[in-house]
Amino acid sequence: MMSMKKKQEDLNVKGTVTYMPEKERVRRRIRRTLEDVFIRYGCEPLETPILNQASLMTDKYGGGAEIVKEMYRLTDQGERDLALRYDLTMPFARVCVMNPTLRKPFKRYEIGKVFRDGPIKAGRYREFTQCDVDVLGVSSQLAEAELMIMALDAFERLGMAVTIQYNNRKFLTGLLDVFGVPESLIPSAVLTLDKLEKKGAAAVLDELLVKGVTEDVTERIGAFLTAGDAADIERIRVYGNGSQQVEEGAAELQELTSFLGATGTLDQCVFNPFLARGLEIYTGTVYEVFSAEPGALSSSIASGGRYDQAVGGLSGSDEGYPSVGISFGLDVITTVLESRIDEEIQEEKVDCLIIPVGEPQAALVLAQALRAQGTSVELDMSGKKPGKALERANREGVRDVILIGSDEVETGIYTVKRMKTGEEEAVSFSFGR
Amino acid sequence: MMSMKKKQEDLNVKGTVTYMPEKERVRRRIRRTLEDVFIRYGCEPLETPILNQASLMTDKYGGGAEIVKEMYRLTDQGERDLALRYDLTMPFARVCVMNPTLRKPFKRYEIGKVFRDGPIKAGRYREFTQCDVDVLGVSSQLAEAELMIMALDAFERLGMAVTIQYNNRKFLTGLLDVFGVPESLIPSAVLTLDKLEKKGAAAVLDELLVKGVTEDVTERIGAFLTAGDAADIERIRVYGNGSQQVEEGAAELQELTSFLGATGTLDQCVFNPFLARGLEIYTGTVYEVFSAEPGALSSSIASGGRYDQAVGGLSGSDEGYPSVGISFGLDVITTVLESRIDEEIQEEKVDCLIIPVGEPQAALVLAQALRAQGTSVELDMSGKKPGKALERANREGVRDVILIGSDEVETGIYTVKRMKTGEEEAVSFSFGR
Repeated sequence: MMSMKKKQEDLNVKGTVTYMPEKERVRRRIRRTLEDVFIRYGCEPLETPILNQASLMTDKYGGGAEIVKEMYRLTDQGERDLALRYDLTMPFARVCVMNPTLRKPFKRYEIGKVFRDGPIKAGRYREFTQCDVDVLGVSSQLAEAELMIMALDAFERLGMAVTIQYNNRKFLTGLLDVFGVPESLIPSAVLTLDKLEKKGAAAVLDELLVKGVTEDVTERIGAFLTAGDAADIERIRVYGNGSQQVEEGAAELQELTSFLGATGTLDQCVFNPFLARGLEIYTGTVYEVFSAEPGALSSSIASGGRYDQAVGGLSGSDEGYPSVGISFGLDVITTVLESRIDEEIQEEKVDCLIIPVGEPQAALVLAQALRAQGTSVELDMSGKKPGKALERANREGVRDVILIGSDEVETGIYTVKRMKTGEEEAVSFSFGR
Repeated sequence: MMSMKKKQEDLNVKGTVTYMPEKERVRRRIRRTLEDVFIRYGCEPLETPILNQASLMTDKYGGGAEIVKEMYRLTDQGERDLALRYDLTMPFARVCVMNPTLRKPFKRYEIGKVFRDGPIKAGRYREFTQCDVDVLGVSSQLAEAELMIMALDAFERLGMAVTIQYNNRKFLTGLLDVFGVPESLIPSAVLTLDKLEKKGAAAVLDELLVKGVTEDVTERIGAFLTAGDAADIERIRVYGNGSQQVEEGAAELQELTSFLGATGTLDQCVFNPFLARGLEIYTGTVYEVFSAEPGALSSSIASGGRYDQAVGGLSGSDEGYPSVGISFGLDVITTVLESRIDEEIQEEKVDCLIIPVGEPQAALVLAQALRAQGTSVELDMSGKKPGKALERANREGVRDVILIGSDEVETGIYTVKRMKTGEEEAVSFSFGR
């Protein structure tokens, strides 16, 4: 037999997390809050399997080469080549393709586990939970506006200060083209420019040179960054000098910005012309939500954008399936809210602890009656002395304690003790003897 | 490019189910009802990973050889030998072992996906959801009573008529020993006797003979079955003639029955001396919940029992970790409640559909205001003519419809149309122009 210590280590899988009750109560609240907000925005629930055909997950319209490398693969007894889903977007696209008569716009949410066999960082695991909303069949920026406003609403309900950065992939690609970055270098240059905020202009320009962007072009980018407000859509549109991509991107950004302005949400939204948000799926608007709490994580807590090609591409038809989505990271949101766990716990603890003192039947009957009234009740089953149970109730912040012994059963009167104030209340009850 | 038809078939994995919104709304209600009941009974939430060390899942204290055969196995990039969990009990046991300072009794619930690569039947899939409650650290039958009463409470809240069959493994094993069934044949004889209700006494006795039980013993069993009420605990105790297992089982059953009697739940509970409920994990009480609805499934919709050896066995210590659990099958409960889907849908549909007629900004602003009041709102983003959107609202049972065009914005008055009655109500609102 292995030693206890050895065995305990063996029992954990790297990159997975077990959420113990204190933390899981917070996660439950986040999950329910998000779900309630999704419902309020008219989203319909969908539940897709975790097990997928590997061929679906590796489709070129899927999450891209980086994600596919991190895919968990397995084979079933029927020798099927399967994979665990790495996101909820491909399963959504599959449902759209398999149900061509689906009424559009189709606005669904799904909350579920996804799996990526990749590097582990703070708040980043191999098995984690995403909470996604996607809209199929809307070309207008109304879809993006709804999802961004919904995200702000959700985080407000969670009591978290946030900022949304947004951009448009057409706009960004068009701007790089106008700078003179060759098409083959654009995907790589985009990743470098995405770090502008974190690393500053000098470092980013150096990295562009290393990546093979010419000095001419690099200087032009540098000049653009210093000459004026880099986050002025109209300035960039004019700078674009008629570029079709820049014009289209600008029109979409301006429409979206007008929606955010009308709903009074623009002060929480920041246009960032260098925000990239992955490369392979997005075709228009992209956004990332960041915590604005002091000392917050630098990684985003929700993100998404428009991907007009994926569903159509998967279906093998040229028909347009415009799609926009947003994904909330339950684990990373939990990390941000962790410090508030203590308060949350107090609110969620049981209302009442019933301690049977030699009268388990009567205690059960009372528990049943109180629960039927909606009270959450823990029946002490420890078999220990009442003093021990009382100590625990005190330590854990239980609201009320009731002892049920032969006196209570005989007189038909029990006493509720309010743990906080020490007040006692006598209640009459028929224990059914 | 593959044809659409071919591709669609490829996109599904055998044994998995996609729950479309109509069905998923019912599942959401079931899940929330169960969770609310679990909370009311003082259960704490726990979330364990789906990915587990294969060695944990194949532990001899786990689900047994039959389940291990159906386990999905996989390897990660670190060459770890992993498995998808096949139940929520082994992960619970793992948490108990890894947290030796856990306050006991520990009463937790977990709702999550489990995976079994086995045969597919009606309502039985390879990827499915279990909703489990387990209690660690209680030897008394109070734990079983709580879980059974909780199950009855939960199904009442779901509006489902149910019956619980219960038994005790010590009692059953002891009785078979008294009959004279040799120890080596007991596990197999138990499986045969479990079919008594379905197949009748004659068929069961024949099967016992085929399995190698002697004629003598078979006759004795037959005589027992016809001589009196087979479901009379006291009669069996006397018949046991001092057998220790029968005596212990009888005492536990009598204690449990007294708790059920005191709480008025005995009329929904049926003692069945031949109920077996799997073999390898249970050590005492076992129970299965069946739908009592007309035309219900014959398979159980929830089940569980006492397994006092598993956690201690896994920890490698001889210390006692008495445990009792119950597992609700979300998918099979959904199957039973499916016929009520239509009513459920009506209740869960959005309260209000807002149709923008050339005024998307104003429509967004109104949607925002109504949602802030708690109204669920769908903003029509189809871009189609209002008539089309109205038709859909009618078909789908939306409660209210509001059209927002330039008249509404200019006058600051919009009209709410109640779709059921056709009534209209004028409401003044500042669209912020």
